[in-house]
Amino acid sequence: MRVQVAIIGAGPAGLLLGRLLENHGIETVILERRSRDYVLGRVRAGVLEQGTVELLDEAGVGGRMRAEGLIHDGIEFCFDGDRHRFDFHDLIGRSVMVYGQTEVTHDLMDARDASGAKTIYEAQDVSLHDFDGERPKVRYTKDGVTHEIACDFIAGCDGYHGVSRQSVPENSIRIFERVYPFGWLGVLVDRPPVAHELIYAHHSRGFALCSMRSPTRSRYYVQCAAGETIAEWSDDRFWDELRSRLDPETAGKLITGPSLEKSIAPLRSFVAEPLRFGRLFLAGDAAHIVPPTGAKGLNLAVSDVRYLAQSLVEFYGERSQAGIAAYSARALARVWKAERFSWWMTSLLHTFPNTDDFGRRIQRTEFEYLAASRAAGQSLAENYTGLPV
Amino acid sequence: MRVQVAIIGAGPAGLLLGRLLENHGIETVILERRSRDYVLGRVRAGVLEQGTVELLDEAGVGGRMRAEGLIHDGIEFCFDGDRHRFDFHDLIGRSVMVYGQTEVTHDLMDARDASGAKTIYEAQDVSLHDFDGERPKVRYTKDGVTHEIACDFIAGCDGYHGVSRQSVPENSIRIFERVYPFGWLGVLVDRPPVAHELIYAHHSRGFALCSMRSPTRSRYYVQCAAGETIAEWSDDRFWDELRSRLDPETAGKLITGPSLEKSIAPLRSFVAEPLRFGRLFLAGDAAHIVPPTGAKGLNLAVSDVRYLAQSLVEFYGERSQAGIAAYSARALARVWKAERFSWWMTSLLHTFPNTDDFGRRIQRTEFEYLAASRAAGQSLAENYTGLPV
Repeated sequence: MRVQVAIIGAGPAGLLLGRLLENHGIETVILERRSRDYVLGRVRAGVLEQGTVELLDEAGVGGRMRAEGLIHDGIEFCFDGDRHRFDFHDLIGRSVMVYGQTEVTHDLMDARDASGAKTIYEAQDVSLHDFDGERPKVRYTKDGVTHEIACDFIAGCDGYHGVSRQSVPENSIRIFERVYPFGWLGVLVDRPPVAHELIYAHHSRGFALCSMRSPTRSRYYVQCAAGETIAEWSDDRFWDELRSRLDPETAGKLITGPSLEKSIAPLRSFVAEPLRFGRLFLAGDAAHIVPPTGAKGLNLAVSDVRYLAQSLVEFYGERSQAGIAAYSARALARVWKAERFSWWMTSLLHTFPNTDDFGRRIQRTEFEYLAASRAAGQSLAENYTGLPV
Repeated sequence: MRVQVAIIGAGPAGLLLGRLLENHGIETVILERRSRDYVLGRVRAGVLEQGTVELLDEAGVGGRMRAEGLIHDGIEFCFDGDRHRFDFHDLIGRSVMVYGQTEVTHDLMDARDASGAKTIYEAQDVSLHDFDGERPKVRYTKDGVTHEIACDFIAGCDGYHGVSRQSVPENSIRIFERVYPFGWLGVLVDRPPVAHELIYAHHSRGFALCSMRSPTRSRYYVQCAAGETIAEWSDDRFWDELRSRLDPETAGKLITGPSLEKSIAPLRSFVAEPLRFGRLFLAGDAAHIVPPTGAKGLNLAVSDVRYLAQSLVEFYGERSQAGIAAYSARALARVWKAERFSWWMTSLLHTFPNTDDFGRRIQRTEFEYLAASRAAGQSLAENYTGLPV
């Protein structure tokens, strides 16, 4: 089998790349280690930057998002019970869209099915070869049979644990990492959200987030210590803890219910540089992870894919290597700005085991400054809704 | 002797408070442990916020400052050799004034002399009494004779090492502190400055600052390790180190000369709360210290004094306690915002012994974001030129 671009991973990054290339007549195959149902069963965040929304529209997969997604013109901070709303519309004339990552994936899968482009699920033992030359190959096993795909390029969109980054020689990649001493305990519940917009709460007991997937399905989080397990967190304990970190008015309005899903995610900042190794490109979580504070993960994957698709379209259309050569630096410039914002928002809103009184008061003062300064509010808003691509 | 307000310390805070009160017919005496020449011999920074300049004008002591001070419409950052100018005028329509703290002190002393208000220099063994009641007293020894001053209020403007804060019972005061693992080695030189505006440099070798006192007198700094002494720093070593941290163009323009003064200052953030204990008020360095990055020390002392003078004028004019009761919270709100800014600017521009690769890249990214975002530039500019009083 021969294809122009072999894409590793059928998450939103790989599927969107396939879609954007297909729209320019570039042929792709997607190899995915998991089943389609497994991919669709993963619960992930769902705050889309305005640029992400626009790109999904351009790609022709924005229909259901436009119908069902919730446009949010702001967020609230609740700091030790004191609330402040950042009105993105007023501050910078922009907004975000709340629409689950799972739904984005679903829409992209449906579009790919309709187009007839090939996705191979449950592809085992995927391996990448010869991407330092002009004829890369990808091998995989399916139903006991080994296959080989010859291609022009390989796009590694297979996430943090995927094979793509691991296929690069260790000495040609540089890792930047920060592990935070806590995690997020998340609960999904079929109850209306406590507020129309997201509430990011800082409290001496820890961070909390009131989020939602739809007008009837809510997603709540509380910061927990590293190493805690969900066995220690009954639904009752979770709701009590969440209430204690919110202002009394919000806590009183909270509608609880049995958890549909409960999980603990560690928080990590991670960047691998560069994003290109000959004819192998990394995009999204395969190359970088952000802590979930600020909801940048999916949006960064989308902006990587936007740059990568442009580079490949330029290559096939104009036989120009310029876009390909520039991809890594171009994508990383935006990645690092989002890493900075995610690190900053994480640092501001969480409690850290070793913070002294001075550090805690600086966190409080940062909140007060943000609430009082239009420039600081604009800075937060432009990062949250997405810096320019 | 009896006076309305006894002021401890003849630095800029005490002198300005005396001036503002005198302008409203409130009688003061200033007690200073050092000699007049000693006070005037202290080399200090000299970047005045726009609000500081306006208050000195209002106080009637801005004449020489207006004639000799240098108005700066911006500053430059030089990050690993890459320069970016923050144009305060364009960003927020404000500016700062470069005019040495020593000169401000001089002008205030001259004005006090002309008015005949009393300043007692070389007052030994100053002690504060009964400020928890309505009849506070201050005792001191001069030329072997002990004197007592009865007063309505005591204003502690005697700096970090002064007697005022130390006179407060330990259990009624709360301390917030951060000690940085480095200092600033400063050199004063009678040579024209390398640039018309201040250059704040970050380099892998450490922070550097190109500053000035006048068009012919420059002040330069390099970050040094905690514990280093000036004996280790010949002039030649200093200039070589400074050049190595600047971009080649600036380094090439540097005009060096024999140092007039050379000293190492440790960097510290410090806040003592509250600022009022009965009829004793703390103002300026007596209550809070900022690291010099951002030049907030004198400006914070001035805004404390502005609030304190307003409170006392209100007390004597309207017999209202409201201003006095509000002083501490009002001043501290502004103090903490400046503490936050000074901590942030220090964290951004210095090298820290334990920073990992991720932390260093975040510093670099912060610089790039500041240089690219108008909102972020406005936030820096409004803090640097002074948040509203």
